[in-house]
Amino acid sequence: MADAAGRFIEYAEMRLGKKILPIDLHNRTWAEVAGVSQEVVRKWLFEEGFFRGMRVMPHSQEVIKKLMEKYEVFIVSAATEFPNSLKEKLEWLNEHFPYISWTHTVFCGHKYMIQADYLIDDHEKNLVRFPGKPILFSAPHNLLLNDYTRVNDWHEVEKMFL
Amino acid sequence: MADAAGRFIEYAEMRLGKKILPIDLHNRTWAEVAGVSQEVVRKWLFEEGFFRGMRVMPHSQEVIKKLMEKYEVFIVSAATEFPNSLKEKLEWLNEHFPYISWTHTVFCGHKYMIQADYLIDDHEKNLVRFPGKPILFSAPHNLLLNDYTRVNDWHEVEKMFL
Repeated sequence: MADAAGRFIEYAEMRLGKKILPIDLHNRTWAEVAGVSQEVVRKWLFEEGFFRGMRVMPHSQEVIKKLMEKYEVFIVSAATEFPNSLKEKLEWLNEHFPYISWTHTVFCGHKYMIQADYLIDDHEKNLVRFPGKPILFSAPHNLLLNDYTRVNDWHEVEKMFL
Repeated sequence: MADAAGRFIEYAEMRLGKKILPIDLHNRTWAEVAGVSQEVVRKWLFEEGFFRGMRVMPHSQEVIKKLMEKYEVFIVSAATEFPNSLKEKLEWLNEHFPYISWTHTVFCGHKYMIQADYLIDDHEKNLVRFPGKPILFSAPHNLLLNDYTRVNDWHEVEKMFL
C-alpha cells in the first residue's frame, strides 16, 4: 500500500544528496545502495514523518476498496519496532484509505500470529510462517524469491481475487 | 495487565470531583457510575496520558515473566480506536514490562484474527469469536458472565498455566 522504497529514495536525496533509481535497489540493502552504514538508514525509520510521508502505491486504493466488497480485509502492518510509526500509519491510513476501519487495522511486530486465508506481503519473513496462502508482492528487495505466488502490482491483486 | 477501571476512578475524581469505589462499577457502565454522558467518559480515552498513566495490575509483571519461560506470549491490545494510546501503550509496556519485545506486541481493533492457543481477556467481545481457549479475566464489567473459564487475578493465571 505504501511505497517504502520510494520514501528511502527521497531520504537518500534529502539527507545524502544521492540520486538513486528504483532499479538500483534490486536485491541490495538500502544501506549498500546509499553507501552508508545500516545505522544511518535505520535512524531515518525512527524519525518523525518518515512513515507519514510515504506515497500510496498505484491502484492500491481502488483495488482494496473493491476487495472489501467481497472479502473481510485486515491491514496488518509491522510497526511496533518504530514507536513514531504507529500514529503516523494510522493517520496515513485515515487519509488515504478512509474506508478502512480501526477495527480492521493491526500493528504488530511478528505477523505469524495472524489468522487469515491470504496474506499479501513483500517480506519473506512475514510470509514464511503464515498458515494460510502467502502471496508475495513484488518489491526491489524480493525479486530473486521464487517460492511464493507473486503479484507485481495492485492490478494483479485485483485479477487474482476478483 | 493495566488497571483501566482504576484509571477511570482517578479521572472521575480529577474531572468531576466524584469519589467512586471499585465496587460501584460492578455491572454498570462508567458513564452510569459517573453520572455523565457516554461522550464525556469517551473523551477521556482520547486524551493524552489516559493510557500512559494506568497502574499495573498486581502480580502481572512476575507472572507474565514466568509465563514467557514456558510459553510464547503475545500482548494483544485493542488500541487502534484511540490514536494517542498506541505510543503510550508501547511506552507503558517498555516501562513496566521491559522483557516483552516489540516483536510480540500487537495493537489491533478486533481481536478475532489472532491465532493462539489461549486468550486471556476481560472483554467478552474479544473472547466470543476466539478460535482457541478463551479465558475471562475478572473485571467490574464482566462479573455476571458465566460462559467462560474465569481467572480473578494474576495468581490464578499462574496456577492455571504453571
